[in-house]
Amino acid sequence: MPEIHFEDLTPGSTFDLGSTVVDRDEMVAFAERFDPQPFHVDPEAGKRSVFGELAASGWFTAGLWMRAYVDNLLRGSSALGSPGGDDIAWPAPVFAGDELRATIEVLDARVSRSRPEMGLITLRGTMHRVSDGVLVYRSRFTGMFGLREPATDQPAAREP
Amino acid sequence: MPEIHFEDLTPGSTFDLGSTVVDRDEMVAFAERFDPQPFHVDPEAGKRSVFGELAASGWFTAGLWMRAYVDNLLRGSSALGSPGGDDIAWPAPVFAGDELRATIEVLDARVSRSRPEMGLITLRGTMHRVSDGVLVYRSRFTGMFGLREPATDQPAAREP
Repeated sequence: MPEIHFEDLTPGSTFDLGSTVVDRDEMVAFAERFDPQPFHVDPEAGKRSVFGELAASGWFTAGLWMRAYVDNLLRGSSALGSPGGDDIAWPAPVFAGDELRATIEVLDARVSRSRPEMGLITLRGTMHRVSDGVLVYRSRFTGMFGLREPATDQPAAREP
Repeated sequence: MPEIHFEDLTPGSTFDLGSTVVDRDEMVAFAERFDPQPFHVDPEAGKRSVFGELAASGWFTAGLWMRAYVDNLLRGSSALGSPGGDDIAWPAPVFAGDELRATIEVLDARVSRSRPEMGLITLRGTMHRVSDGVLVYRSRFTGMFGLREPATDQPAAREP
């Protein structure tokens, strides 16, 4: 697989990141460790909650999206991490057994001024429930990627 | 412990959410499942990366913050979940063994127009490394909380 560099992530591009099915045991185990609110760990509390059913922690959904992103785009890329983002949303609850399809869209791309060997990509990540098409996760964040051919304002080194 | 309701979360309030130490095995296991980028799972790749050392997935750090928030504020509160936020950042890497202190600050509070039994709180969450005071995690998001005394524009029911 050819490496994905900054230059390959052009604004307007969308990548399918595949789909994943929410495993009930893992969903509950995650919530017990990281987000033990009653509606995430107790089926009865889930039924009484605004979600109407035991619902996944939003951080579990974010983790499933991240894994899809690593498996289907970052792996073998020149990714250098992320400083963060300015939108993260869980517009609808996720339930055990849901099949979720992940995508990522490139919104913007620019070379870093302070580090011209690096590019900054603005990305929109989403997850939709396959059964009804409902959006259950949305994010917008910056990804840092190495350039295949680093930009430079410097003249080439002189021949000796 | 008295329940925390919307009315208790007044803008300007800050809550200490305690501290937690990053367990190396758990940090790596989390990354292997949810964020298996080389610098999160392979010590040698971590050393060669921009982080200079094996670094935690930002989603693991977010999970540790969430657990501190549940243990120290949400548990026993009237929390109804969160639709998301408009800032999430990892300004510095987190390493195995780091002790992280979590806080939350109330930035804004308003009663929902469509659901007057519910309030919407804007919250700022942070985590700092205890050893050097460096900010390693920051978020701003909306929390939904039930009111202790629901607001109402309706006249009281008439006596029969």
